Amino acid sequence: MKLVTFRHDGHVRHGRLIENGTIVQPLGDGDVTASLGGAATAAGPAFPLADVELLAPLLRPGKLLAAAANYQDHVTEAGGEPLDKSRLSPRLFLKPPTGIVGPGADIPMPSVSREVDWEAELAVVIGTTARNVPIAKALDIVGGYVTSNDVSARSMDFGYERDTGDSHVWFFDWLAGKLLDGFAPMGPWLVTADEVPDPQALHITLDVNGERRQDGSTKDMIFSVAELVSFASTLMTLEPGDVIMTGTPSGVGAATGQYLKAGDRMSVTIGDLGTLTNRMVAS
Amino acid sequence: MKLVTFRHDGHVRHGRLIENGTIVQPLGDGDVTASLGGAATAAGPAFPLADVELLAPLLRPGKLLAAAANYQDHVTEAGGEPLDKSRLSPRLFLKPPTGIVGPGADIPMPSVSREVDWEAELAVVIGTTARNVPIAKALDIVGGYVTSNDVSARSMDFGYERDTGDSHVWFFDWLAGKLLDGFAPMGPWLVTADEVPDPQALHITLDVNGERRQDGSTKDMIFSVAELVSFASTLMTLEPGDVIMTGTPSGVGAATGQYLKAGDRMSVTIGDLGTLTNRMVAS
Repeated sequence: MKLVTFRHDGHVRHGRLIENGTIVQPLGDGDVTASLGGAATAAGPAFPLADVELLAPLLRPGKLLAAAANYQDHVTEAGGEPLDKSRLSPRLFLKPPTGIVGPGADIPMPSVSREVDWEAELAVVIGTTARNVPIAKALDIVGGYVTSNDVSARSMDFGYERDTGDSHVWFFDWLAGKLLDGFAPMGPWLVTADEVPDPQALHITLDVNGERRQDGSTKDMIFSVAELVSFASTLMTLEPGDVIMTGTPSGVGAATGQYLKAGDRMSVTIGDLGTLTNRMVAS
Repeated sequence: MKLVTFRHDGHVRHGRLIENGTIVQPLGDGDVTASLGGAATAAGPAFPLADVELLAPLLRPGKLLAAAANYQDHVTEAGGEPLDKSRLSPRLFLKPPTGIVGPGADIPMPSVSREVDWEAELAVVIGTTARNVPIAKALDIVGGYVTSNDVSARSMDFGYERDTGDSHVWFFDWLAGKLLDGFAPMGPWLVTADEVPDPQALHITLDVNGERRQDGSTKDMIFSVAELVSFASTLMTLEPGDVIMTGTPSGVGAATGQYLKAGDRMSVTIGDLGTLTNRMVAS
């Protein structure tokens, strides 16, 4: 089942796609969270997908987690040594809901960075409340999957010289670069977990202005979806609608020094989860 | 005005304290966000404060930001050199809403750390939506202030040896130690900004089991409330109900190696904002 969050006649609702994806059957108010894992019951008449404005499937998740450094080839393109998973934990951080925008939305170029980059990522959406979930059971609490892009400012420019050789300054700049408005686009829809039998077998690509820049597979994650979900649940109670972005493969702009500029169009495609396109615009 | 979020007869509502703080006048459903900056209109009969269960004033803020290393004496007790503010930016990170608990709530000892510590912090609550707010105008968008505690696990124990000399491992462990359930207690109430003429003149203390451990003043913040709010707004659109915890003075457990154990009771008092007491319990 494909679940969408949409605006129609000024109201934000969610629904499912029917008739080969051309028709939206409304299921309820607000975003898709209310229908994760539950029985979907029609709420009102259906209408053409073309008549609605698609929004991000999740508009205000309690937690928007993301994994850093979760593909070996992305780690090494950034100049790092390959990671030894046996001595590592997943590296999680939080992005704010003000980062979330939907499919087709414009993303403002920030005033605080000149190095804005893309990161195609499989986003995992939690379906049921859980804590301390073993790896073998972790996929059972996943409600669905969404195409996403962990847009990232690689350096910050606050208008004065700082000691960027200081690892603390570097880390907090790195975090700040994840927090900017519009830097967590998601969509166009959520595909329920029953239709994604193996989340580690998805082709993941990102094009900038029609040119292929990332071309990987979720099989190359260092920590699998199940491992990420399980680990996150040892730290925090996971709740329906929580999102975990699972890291990006190689091919980011930082590897070649080619960053995004106003007018650039990014398109992320992951397996059969749909294509997420967003354009950078002057702010 | 003191605003409280409370549970009464199974419903979560918010209200204001009247009659010298003994009576709750309900103002509406949900947490205090709806009445920030707005005209408070009575919604239903008042009742004694003693009859309600106080919850955290903010239950699910869009953003729960916190500032690291924002008091010089806390930086130096942790073994650091004093920070040169002229070459620094505020160091912000996000905590999840699953960290939030209210006054009097128990906090479970985590399974993933044996070094759990306290951090008395002034929490600033945003009252109006804003972006790129200059420092001189930043206090205008503050809706109120709350006593809070940035409970922090100082090291993580995931059951296997890791390379904790690697600064990336260290940093993501540090972040993980901020994310745990119950690690963001807040309350007992929000004091509206009009009653806090100078947020940099508040006495801030924390006792553990009745023994004074932190005793500072918000005048010693490296970045003031206005500077933190302004900086955050250059990264992100700030929204009503967003919270910024503003860092802690010296006296944390890590400085002496004395960490929290089940049964320990922490009490934070900040100016006239009220006292927040929470107890660690076995999980």
